[in-house]
Amino acid sequence: MIKKGPIIKPVAGNKPQDGHDPMYRWACDLFPIYRSLSGVGVRETLNYIKTLLPGLSIKEFKSGTQVFDWTVPDEWEIIDAYIEDESGNKIVELSDHNLHVVGYSEPINKWMTLDDLNEHLFSLPNNPYAIPYVTSYYEKNWGFCLTHKQRELLLPGRYHVVIDSSFKQGVLNYGELIIKGSSNKEILLSTYVCHPSMANNELSGPVLTTAIARYLSSLDFDSRYTYRILFLPETIGSISYLNEHLHEMKKHTIAGFVISCVGDQRDFSIIQSRSGECLADRVLIHTLRQYCKKPTIYSFLDRGSDERQYCSPGVDLPVVGFSRSKYATFPEYHTSFDDLSLITQKGLEQSYSVMIDVLLVLEKNYNYKTSVLCEPQLGKRGLYHKIGINNTGVSHQKSDVNLIMDFMAFADGGNDMISIAEKIGCKAVDLIKIARLLCDHNLISTSKSEVE
Amino acid sequence: MIKKGPIIKPVAGNKPQDGHDPMYRWACDLFPIYRSLSGVGVRETLNYIKTLLPGLSIKEFKSGTQVFDWTVPDEWEIIDAYIEDESGNKIVELSDHNLHVVGYSEPINKWMTLDDLNEHLFSLPNNPYAIPYVTSYYEKNWGFCLTHKQRELLLPGRYHVVIDSSFKQGVLNYGELIIKGSSNKEILLSTYVCHPSMANNELSGPVLTTAIARYLSSLDFDSRYTYRILFLPETIGSISYLNEHLHEMKKHTIAGFVISCVGDQRDFSIIQSRSGECLADRVLIHTLRQYCKKPTIYSFLDRGSDERQYCSPGVDLPVVGFSRSKYATFPEYHTSFDDLSLITQKGLEQSYSVMIDVLLVLEKNYNYKTSVLCEPQLGKRGLYHKIGINNTGVSHQKSDVNLIMDFMAFADGGNDMISIAEKIGCKAVDLIKIARLLCDHNLISTSKSEVE
Amino acid sequence: MIKKGPIIKPVAGNKPQDGHDPMYRWACDLFPIYRSLSGVGVRETLNYIKTLLPGLSIKEFKSGTQVFDWTVPDEWEIIDAYIEDESGNKIVELSDHNLHVVGYSEPINKWMTLDDLNEHLFSLPNNPYAIPYVTSYYEKNWGFCLTHKQRELLLPGRYHVVIDSSFKQGVLNYGELIIKGSSNKEILLSTYVCHPSMANNELSGPVLTTAIARYLSSLDFDSRYTYRILFLPETIGSISYLNEHLHEMKKHTIAGFVISCVGDQRDFSIIQSRSGECLADRVLIHTLRQYCKKPTIYSFLDRGSDERQYCSPGVDLPVVGFSRSKYATFPEYHTSFDDLSLITQKGLEQSYSVMIDVLLVLEKNYNYKTSVLCEPQLGKRGLYHKIGINNTGVSHQKSDVNLIMDFMAFADGGNDMISIAEKIGCKAVDLIKIARLLCDHNLISTSKSEVE
Repeated sequence: MIKKGPIIKPVAGNKPQDGHDPMYRWACDLFPIYRSLSGVGVRETLNYIKTLLPGLSIKEFKSGTQVFDWTVPDEWEIIDAYIEDESGNKIVELSDHNLHVVGYSEPINKWMTLDDLNEHLFSLPNNPYAIPYVTSYYEKNWGFCLTHKQRELLLPGRYHVVIDSSFKQGVLNYGELIIKGSSNKEILLSTYVCHPSMANNELSGPVLTTAIARYLSSLDFDSRYTYRILFLPETIGSISYLNEHLHEMKKHTIAGFVISCVGDQRDFSIIQSRSGECLADRVLIHTLRQYCKKPTIYSFLDRGSDERQYCSPGVDLPVVGFSRSKYATFPEYHTSFDDLSLITQKGLEQSYSVMIDVLLVLEKNYNYKTSVLCEPQLGKRGLYHKIGINNTGVSHQKSDVNLIMDFMAFADGGNDMISIAEKIGCKAVDLIKIARLLCDHNLISTSKSEVE
Repeated sequence: MIKKGPIIKPVAGNKPQDGHDPMYRWACDLFPIYRSLSGVGVRETLNYIKTLLPGLSIKEFKSGTQVFDWTVPDEWEIIDAYIEDESGNKIVELSDHNLHVVGYSEPINKWMTLDDLNEHLFSLPNNPYAIPYVTSYYEKNWGFCLTHKQRELLLPGRYHVVIDSSFKQGVLNYGELIIKGSSNKEILLSTYVCHPSMANNELSGPVLTTAIARYLSSLDFDSRYTYRILFLPETIGSISYLNEHLHEMKKHTIAGFVISCVGDQRDFSIIQSRSGECLADRVLIHTLRQYCKKPTIYSFLDRGSDERQYCSPGVDLPVVGFSRSKYATFPEYHTSFDDLSLITQKGLEQSYSVMIDVLLVLEKNYNYKTSVLCEPQLGKRGLYHKIGINNTGVSHQKSDVNLIMDFMAFADGGNDMISIAEKIGCKAVDLIKIARLLCDHNLISTSKSEVE
Repeated sequence: MIKKGPIIKPVAGNKPQDGHDPMYRWACDLFPIYRSLSGVGVRETLNYIKTLLPGLSIKEFKSGTQVFDWTVPDEWEIIDAYIEDESGNKIVELSDHNLHVVGYSEPINKWMTLDDLNEHLFSLPNNPYAIPYVTSYYEKNWGFCLTHKQRELLLPGRYHVVIDSSFKQGVLNYGELIIKGSSNKEILLSTYVCHPSMANNELSGPVLTTAIARYLSSLDFDSRYTYRILFLPETIGSISYLNEHLHEMKKHTIAGFVISCVGDQRDFSIIQSRSGECLADRVLIHTLRQYCKKPTIYSFLDRGSDERQYCSPGVDLPVVGFSRSKYATFPEYHTSFDDLSLITQKGLEQSYSVMIDVLLVLEKNYNYKTSVLCEPQLGKRGLYHKIGINNTGVSHQKSDVNLIMDFMAFADGGNDMISIAEKIGCKAVDLIKIARLLCDHNLISTSKSEVE
């Protein structure tokens, strides 16, 4: 029943590095599935992810449910779709490419003129070899998408248009994984599973989120924070989820990340929260700057995925978006060119490193406070170079001593670890081991109230 | 009794555009009147304005009244003034130009040498064809102003100096128009009427203020705010007015504008309040940036008109100055070259547009708040383009949809309309219709407490 | 017993200007003394300063005292030290240069191979004609410092190494001078006296501090603030002092200055407090900008002297460092090249002027408030030019009138004098006479509560 699109060959050399999940392979497996807002495509996708994340719960919202200003739509099913010319040639056919039909198209079976048909064709004059991705979720309509090159060849005449689709009261599916930490304070990871065969602007998000979730699930100690990890249809999925969980999420969430378009190697970017100043903004910008000189910092005006809902007034969750080449900014966006040649295992692994750094830092991000007045005497603890020489060739662990002294100098209980790293110009992730060392020597402490 | 200066021909093409008051013509009418701090010139000017603004009250402060650190000066009257040479030629004569006599000159009738006369002559060596504008309001003195070219021709010899002036206990006049709004919160508009025949640095202010007042008086609905519109002699006028009205003005004024030098076409500028951050600063800077790329933003250090009093410590009204080419910055300033060729109907109309935009925005400048959680579904209200296509040639009302969504995204009750416009990079005045639309659809509301 | 290093000839032309203390001569007198953390060198230095500052108290901390995380070390005494070759030639000898022995070296008297000796030699390959300055205060060790050129000439063979030193329970000395003001609020001046023969990074600090203290002691009126002036061994001295005085210093100190490396003529610099925003930061940066266009503003990350202790978390005194070429930034730093040719009387006098300006401004740095509403009428008080002419060649005391009017415009009780000077773009020190004038005319006042 599910139409499989053409399987594009994985690019050579896309092998995972040691210790890394084969995210690229998962993307290849998931690419042909015909996803839409709801229906079998989403379920098949979630079932695949559940084989990698056994703890994942596949849940649902019933069609017709009122969710804030919206209504959960009917489930859409499609068996076949094509355009046939007078000679009986199927000139556009869903079985050739998952993008050929406008998502949520109504059923139709009708002969019509080219003029009438043209009202329902979508192509890109400026990108004539690409099939565009078009949907009509909330207005009844139907349509086909094709390359502009193909469209230009259509001759006047009559065309047989067939879309064998149907709507039914069904459900909207989503995946949820809660990983308990020692605190009920939460970090949110959210990604979407509702686009058909596209790679950067769809599969890169779920496969990276899956890999992070596998890492968090495999820890042999309790994390500090609880992790809420969501695989949702975009927009209606997050709205429906917030409709059920807003109260607890507002109470517990300390930072959240919408993970989208994280598979290419062209850019690193953040979509800032509405204020641009929440913890998630601070930690992600800080971390991205370790990975590239000038990450792109998009303001909330450039939002486009589920941060639109998470950060809306009254919802006000401290959530940012993490992308490499952000949706709506790269030339292949929302076309058939956003395929498996656009993303790489290496691109996904770099994104993975960014997010793991972000989470490691958040886990240790306390407002540390010195336990001694004046500078400590590092020497008697073996933490200092032994001889007070400057300006000489004598080598000592200068950088570590400097990190220790600078960390202590700003550990006044008013700065968290990210803020100290920003002040002293080092990586927050490098301060983790310094903080552990200083805690072990009772030179700094975290306030009780912070250790929830 | 009133000496009329030379009437300079209005510049060709200075016709008002449709729907605009003939501000330039009013300036022509007012130009010849010999204004000073007090006396018949001010009264004649106010009477002329009253023909355009029937609601205007012409009021007065009595000479000798103590007003804060100052005393209202005596009324000054001048019948004639000239310098005669030994041959009986009148070489400098008030009837030739209103600027020839130092304002508030004491009476004199005396023969003297050129050396003695020179102590009382004022001219501009660097601007040798211009007559300077000089006053001596608070020190008894007398003097004549003339072009430097003319002064250089004066030969040694004796000169007969005549100033037929007098001082008397009288009044200092001013005009006041209060236009009641539904709230007792006020907006202040203040301009001055004490300079003789100068165009940009005098008449542009009163004629623009008159046009704005006519607009406000002609509304067929109640404005939100009450408007306090003042035509005052500069400095002593505003000090005297504040002496009587400080308490109520501090209680009610939410924004104020000193309108001065608004008739040329060379610049747009603001003189910021002392803090530089009050509502008047924000709305005027925002609006000026719609009218020119780089309006000149003068700090309070460059103040020079009645914002000096309104913003003084303890008075602390939220007032800024609005100018095109600001006093003391253009070459014709305080000379006979600041004449009717310097200002234009078009320049005045642009200033009028600026101020009307400013007032329209202030009237609608609430802290709007969304009534729905998450984004609203615009589609079901007919506010959205119907098909979700991006990256294609399909046109839709993108800009309006974006404005709506961005407005809603920042309508969290913590941002006023000006602040939202700044954040989303649009004109505040363009958000007025968006706000009305969203209010009509019950998607946003203003808090009750704000609707005074 | 005290070994005198070579006396370097004072540089020609280093004569004090009229009215200035001969700081350079004091530095010459103090240069040969062999100072270390403790012992006779420090005492001799403090005794010399006491001849210039009779009120100075020479005090002590006992060896072994616990001071926060540290212990006051034993007193170190050294009689002689040299390295002898097999021919009996003394090739390195303390009596030749005070820097030849590592400070706090343990006693030794032993023949050894060059290989073994090399473990204890320090030289600078990149600065081969300079003797480095090395200490080992808190790790038992011994060593010699020599030029790299000399070291390269050492032949394999056996060397007789003699260090005739000893440690004893003794004291750590320091000097303290308290100059009472009318308020118990304090200004701290702190400098160090623990380095052997170096000029910029040692003696410039004590001689400048002595000159400032002489100025403050010679005033014929009570200063507003109390001055706490300290001559301490670096680090352990300030830690020990804070251990005894922290409570009162936290209660009273409004600003403090660590004075170090203030004798050359190459730069003017500040080491900011941890926040970078305390009163000492503001007044010193403001003042330095009057002395040079671009003073170097080092953040707290570049700290290195006793601001490390004064600004440590929990101590939190509002202290900055004042330097010309800061320690660790100039090529002669911590070597024998930091000698009397590096500093000049002129360099010291400029630093003196900076600090006197700083203290004069602090003494008068009130939150002034106007006593009149609206602008004052300066004319009736003889404070204004008499005739209101602009744009002409007529000269008047424009700058003073502008300073007066601008000062009044910002004298709202919310800005101190430094902040007003920053706003109006003048020197704070120039506002002192304006403030006095306006106070004399009852046009401004300081709030009672500020006059402690």
